Amino acid sequence: MFDQHGDTLTRAMKAIAERGYWSAYPESPSPRVYGEGAAERGKEAFESYLGKPFPIEQQGTGLWIGAERSPYGMELGVTYPEPSPEQLVDLAGAAMPAWRDAGPQERAQVCAEILHRINQRSFEIANAVQHTTGQAFVMAFQAGGPHAQDRGLEAVAYGLAAMTAARSHARWEKPAKGDPLVMEKTFTVVPRGVALVIGCNTFPTWNAYPGLFASLVTGNPVIVKPHPGAILPLAITVAIAREVLEEAGFDPDLVTLAAEEGQGLASQLATHPDVRIVDFTGSTEYGDWLERNATQALVHTEKAGVNTVVVDSTDSYKGMLGNIAFSLSLYSGQMCTAPQNILIPSDGIQTDAGPKSLAEVAADLAAAVSRLLGDDARAVELTGAIVNAGVLGRVEAAPSLGEVVLESRAVTHPAFPGATVRTPVIVKLSQADEETYGREHFGPVAFVIATGSTEESLAVLRRTISSRGALTASVYSTSPQVLEAAERAALDAGVNLSCNLTGGVFVNQSAAFSDYHGTGANPAATASLTDPGFVAGRFFVVQSRRHA
Amino acid sequence: MFDQHGDTLTRAMKAIAERGYWSAYPESPSPRVYGEGAAERGKEAFESYLGKPFPIEQQGTGLWIGAERSPYGMELGVTYPEPSPEQLVDLAGAAMPAWRDAGPQERAQVCAEILHRINQRSFEIANAVQHTTGQAFVMAFQAGGPHAQDRGLEAVAYGLAAMTAARSHARWEKPAKGDPLVMEKTFTVVPRGVALVIGCNTFPTWNAYPGLFASLVTGNPVIVKPHPGAILPLAITVAIAREVLEEAGFDPDLVTLAAEEGQGLASQLATHPDVRIVDFTGSTEYGDWLERNATQALVHTEKAGVNTVVVDSTDSYKGMLGNIAFSLSLYSGQMCTAPQNILIPSDGIQTDAGPKSLAEVAADLAAAVSRLLGDDARAVELTGAIVNAGVLGRVEAAPSLGEVVLESRAVTHPAFPGATVRTPVIVKLSQADEETYGREHFGPVAFVIATGSTEESLAVLRRTISSRGALTASVYSTSPQVLEAAERAALDAGVNLSCNLTGGVFVNQSAAFSDYHGTGANPAATASLTDPGFVAGRFFVVQSRRHA
Repeated sequence: MFDQHGDTLTRAMKAIAERGYWSAYPESPSPRVYGEGAAERGKEAFESYLGKPFPIEQQGTGLWIGAERSPYGMELGVTYPEPSPEQLVDLAGAAMPAWRDAGPQERAQVCAEILHRINQRSFEIANAVQHTTGQAFVMAFQAGGPHAQDRGLEAVAYGLAAMTAARSHARWEKPAKGDPLVMEKTFTVVPRGVALVIGCNTFPTWNAYPGLFASLVTGNPVIVKPHPGAILPLAITVAIAREVLEEAGFDPDLVTLAAEEGQGLASQLATHPDVRIVDFTGSTEYGDWLERNATQALVHTEKAGVNTVVVDSTDSYKGMLGNIAFSLSLYSGQMCTAPQNILIPSDGIQTDAGPKSLAEVAADLAAAVSRLLGDDARAVELTGAIVNAGVLGRVEAAPSLGEVVLESRAVTHPAFPGATVRTPVIVKLSQADEETYGREHFGPVAFVIATGSTEESLAVLRRTISSRGALTASVYSTSPQVLEAAERAALDAGVNLSCNLTGGVFVNQSAAFSDYHGTGANPAATASLTDPGFVAGRFFVVQSRRHA
Repeated sequence: MFDQHGDTLTRAMKAIAERGYWSAYPESPSPRVYGEGAAERGKEAFESYLGKPFPIEQQGTGLWIGAERSPYGMELGVTYPEPSPEQLVDLAGAAMPAWRDAGPQERAQVCAEILHRINQRSFEIANAVQHTTGQAFVMAFQAGGPHAQDRGLEAVAYGLAAMTAARSHARWEKPAKGDPLVMEKTFTVVPRGVALVIGCNTFPTWNAYPGLFASLVTGNPVIVKPHPGAILPLAITVAIAREVLEEAGFDPDLVTLAAEEGQGLASQLATHPDVRIVDFTGSTEYGDWLERNATQALVHTEKAGVNTVVVDSTDSYKGMLGNIAFSLSLYSGQMCTAPQNILIPSDGIQTDAGPKSLAEVAADLAAAVSRLLGDDARAVELTGAIVNAGVLGRVEAAPSLGEVVLESRAVTHPAFPGATVRTPVIVKLSQADEETYGREHFGPVAFVIATGSTEESLAVLRRTISSRGALTASVYSTSPQVLEAAERAALDAGVNLSCNLTGGVFVNQSAAFSDYHGTGANPAATASLTDPGFVAGRFFVVQSRRHA
């Protein structure tokens, strides 16, 4: 039925080994790519959900719940079936054997078909992502659509590669006195058990698809528990998955939606004795709780961290400022990969525009951000809206943390007057303020931190990232020695490093099939999205042997 | 320095994918294989350790400890440096960066050289295994020597395969308006952190080598904490590893010995915040404790289980009885893979020797064991000695559990009059006695269990193994339908199955590079020894990228 995805899967498996550029789903929202009217149809599909029960046939308590509100100002009014956790786990378990028996190749084909249909509905999902996360539309389309789909396919490819690395049949022939001992052996992939994906508020699809597809392709049913503020993008995803599974002859309850308004459903499900896999993206506090309490499960978490920029010197001062300003502004710093701590020697840096004092670098960075976000209509297409009250509170509290280099600005959205839009605040700290910069201030809050030297900057990076984690680090230097020292510091701290980004690549962006997102080697995450370690443990091999 | 192991590693990596027969280290203790005088020199080397401090230069508290006693009757009197846990962890951490920087290939070469030198000292280690575990000499040589070495090499191969599955350098070239975006990316393997291997009493080398070499090859320093009753085989192993590491220019503290007399050193080390990997073989109780409490670490455990034989019918009645009798007798059932629960329909079975009632099968099995172990001198070469008082206590308690089909017999060892030798006890139970047969009675204790039918036998297998775990299961049937049903039951229970073993292959034996030991899919173990899931999470990949 879905044989047309064979080439895609083969190509994806090649890509995960080569780690060069490759993408299965076009990131351009152009009508030349997705067809005339696709954008309009997607918007209509999104609007058709508003104020109504979401069209999904799934067992539950009979109640319909949901309290999503767009960061752009309006209530969504979509409701979802309230689930019974026990029932969801039972339904998932009952659906598992037939899915196991389908085998790795068929499961991968079905997963590829699910992703293909998700891709066809990228505009619809983009609107849902925009109005649950506050992302600007283009970002919601790219990160919530094709980029998330690529990460999902990447997880399928890793799963398929892992499941097929060894043969499924072998003939064992051991030399012996007289006749050799000969046995026929069969090796069957079996799933670990019911999987739970706990979604986040800011990237509901991008952060959920790797866990969802890694578990599904390896034979596990998946319960998808979205953040109460970002249900719709995953509800659409789940509905598509159920539709494809049913068409392929499987039980749609292999993928179910566990919507809630915030009653602690995640903890109930994550500690259920029959839930054997948990994937979570969110706060360090809750991630740590899961790691300590869901000990019956394989737990993968992506948590907070202190993303760091080390500024030593540059041969492209303007390029550096523009690049950092963009990284701070994109989605108002509400990316788990956005830089927070910008470490600069207190006696300034050498640049192609001459030596610059720390005060000058800070002021020039502030000016670069102001310039980038000077025009309200263009600014909101970069910043989007503030996702929730927690982020807003941190932006408002930031001036009390130190000397304000750049004030946050409230911007009125030309199209959505109810949107909460804030530009980044930059606060100057000294190296001694580790209590402040040593923890994450998620949102548009950045620190310029005066250090004794670049060597001390690298010591701060090593120390803070080893203890608090980070998803990204970057360094600017014209010195090969400093770049090498930065690479060693990044290896010690276990963080991915970008060097001298001054053009169209930003530290907050990671490309599926080439860049690893997170490492597992620091407290911000337990594994990369996605790598062999991310799929391992989601399945086992059971053998049967008999004399030939 | 160790380039000669390149071919061995290449061959091993081929073997783990093909899963046919392959072995790197010959299992025959013949002088034609290991050389004239090798056996004698090994025995002398072993005897040279007795009653003295073990020759290892390692920091510690200054005290020398050790209280090993041979199950064959004598005190060993070997002492080892008493370690300070904090110091061991610090030494390990300090040794790590240079080992990381050596990279996967060099680490694999060093590991292969360690294994090569261990292999050269197989006779010495065999004597040490014999006199700490109670295994008979040939088994101590094979399972404690070449078979353990093969499992170690298998772990090295899985580690190397996992670390090199993706390229370490890539050029990323993304089409863009104007010039493409081009980046050079470097991917570096970094270790998870300090590893701990907790050894067991019965198979100190075989069960420790997979974790030891999986952690070491992936860049982690390893602290080896032997069982207080079986230190010597691992002390020799650690000394060899340290010698090779030092010759190769690395810090010998990458592998250290943590000897104890039973003061709870394992718990201290396993919950140390800087210990990031724990491999354990032993009791379910302590394994479960580790899984719940060492949450800062990746924990792999191999625990107890209820290994099961389903007897439905056979076309080789004599072969079946002989095969099961051998499996029960080998090392007095003190193998984690030895069968315990033999499920037989209460109305008997069909065989090539005519129909047999349950009572007949039980009596014939008892007779087969008695015949196999009738001659004391030959019996002890199969049973070895009882490893410790716990096992002896269970043998002595077994008759109270049900109707005794075969009494255990105390055998006087012709060469070691102080040895505690016991033949298996077989007790008949009914299907209703699940309280008794539903838990492990580690040692030479087997149950013949009357079930309502083979279908009910398979239901018992499914239920007991799903809830209590098992490392092995086997089935005897002439019916393809029953064999298929048994295979499905084994998949559901997540246990490796052997079908109709009537010749020279026994259910308790698993061959490295072909058979998986354990699955991870039932409570007896968290992963197979060894497979990709066993090495995953022991290392991470950290990337660095810059514009080309």
